[in-house]
Amino acid sequence: MAEPVPDVTAEVRTANERFYAAIETGDLDAMQALWVDDEACVCVHPGAVPVRGPGAIGRSWALLMAGTAYLQFVLTDVEVSLREDVATVTCTENVLTAEEGGHLDPFAAGQVVSTNVFVLTAEGWRLWVRHASPVLSAIDDEQ
Amino acid sequence: MAEPVPDVTAEVRTANERFYAAIETGDLDAMQALWVDDEACVCVHPGAVPVRGPGAIGRSWALLMAGTAYLQFVLTDVEVSLREDVATVTCTENVLTAEEGGHLDPFAAGQVVSTNVFVLTAEGWRLWVRHASPVLSAIDDEQ
Repeated sequence: MAEPVPDVTAEVRTANERFYAAIETGDLDAMQALWVDDEACVCVHPGAVPVRGPGAIGRSWALLMAGTAYLQFVLTDVEVSLREDVATVTCTENVLTAEEGGHLDPFAAGQVVSTNVFVLTAEGWRLWVRHASPVLSAIDDEQ
Repeated sequence: MAEPVPDVTAEVRTANERFYAAIETGDLDAMQALWVDDEACVCVHPGAVPVRGPGAIGRSWALLMAGTAYLQFVLTDVEVSLREDVATVTCTENVLTAEEGGHLDPFAAGQVVSTNVFVLTAEGWRLWVRHASPVLSAIDDEQ
């Protein structure tokens, strides 16, 4: 794992930002286009069991998008790591959300930690694995 | 992402099993040897924020091992996916645990879903990223 080449890292960051933009705008087509067309792809939503394959993953996002009127992500602690044509992005999602007809509650969803694994395809960087989990404790093991 | 070659998949499964054996036996040296020697490696413990780099990851496992008298993992839904020399393993960890001096409680820790990302090095398959999260809901998005 050599030092990431800056422009490749930027490409991966852009793909990662497109993923969050697809959620924020409720754009299911954009979301589905972001995943590799392979039954091996996996998505773990916070607190849930794995969803496997593009079809099931698309349906899970459709359900999430239908149930939420407003979602905004402020990403912090974004780190990209590269290994040939595989890239991992780990980040903290600071999520603002509002239920349908409801008031914006900046603490409704709180913090989620995510690992997004992208692979380089002929169409660009595509999601292979996403694993998201709620932050239940403020303990930082590094300190 | 071609169909995984059977023996490579078996190698990855063995590396994954070594990881859980290291936790079960409290073998910190074995645990540390399983990680790539690269500051880019990341470990997300259930409900926690990311721990980055081999040093901090080793310390976090030392802390976890010191705080638990008994841990046993029964892995289910283990799926391996390969992309060149990167492999992802997603599995459900059915965790049996006991506190120091305590009684074995099969429901103490419950279910954890994990994504373990391995890379092939000169020393074999090594952990690059691990992301573990508690299963908080029995909802299966696939159904």
